[in-house]
Amino acid sequence: MAHFRAEIDIMPHKELLDPQGKAVAASLQKLHFEDVEDVRIGRHITIKIKAKSKEEAAAHVEEACKKLLANAIMEGFHYQIHEA
Amino acid sequence: MAHFRAEIDIMPHKELLDPQGKAVAASLQKLHFEDVEDVRIGRHITIKIKAKSKEEAAAHVEEACKKLLANAIMEGFHYQIHEA
Repeated sequence: MAHFRAEIDIMPHKELLDPQGKAVAASLQKLHFEDVEDVRIGRHITIKIKAKSKEEAAAHVEEACKKLLANAIMEGFHYQIHEA
Repeated sequence: MAHFRAEIDIMPHKELLDPQGKAVAASLQKLHFEDVEDVRIGRHITIKIKAKSKEEAAAHVEEACKKLLANAIMEGFHYQIHEA
C-alpha cells in the first residue's frame, strides 16, 4: 500500500449566486482593491489516503466527494492526487 | 489592463488541530473509507481581478490574503495566478 495526498476543491456551481463571495468582493472593494471583479468561495480539502495505486486512490476520493464531501445540487468538485 | 484569475487555498496551520477535518475523517471511516488517514479542511477562493501584469495581480492577491482573507494566527495561504 502506498500513501497518497488528494487536494480537492469544492466550489459553488457557476449558475448559483455565492452570497459569501459577493460579501467578500464588496469588502475588498471597500479596502481599495477596486480591481477585484468577482469572488467565489468554496472549500479546499486535503485527504491523506493509502491505496494500492494512484487510480485506486482517485476512485476512493471521487466516491468520497460524491457520498459525503460535496453537495451535488449546489457544488462541483475537482481534485488532484499526489504521491505522498 | 489584463484579466487574471487567482486560485487561493487557505488552510489551517499544520500545528493546529482541525476539528472539522477530524469529524469528516471519522465520518469517512464509518462510511467504509478505512484507508483515509487524515483530513484537513480549509477554504478555496477564486478571485477575478484586473491588473497591468501578472506580478501586479499577484501583489494585490497577496495583500488581500494578508488583510482580509486569511487569519495569519490560524491559517496559511498559497495561490496561483492564471491569465483569464
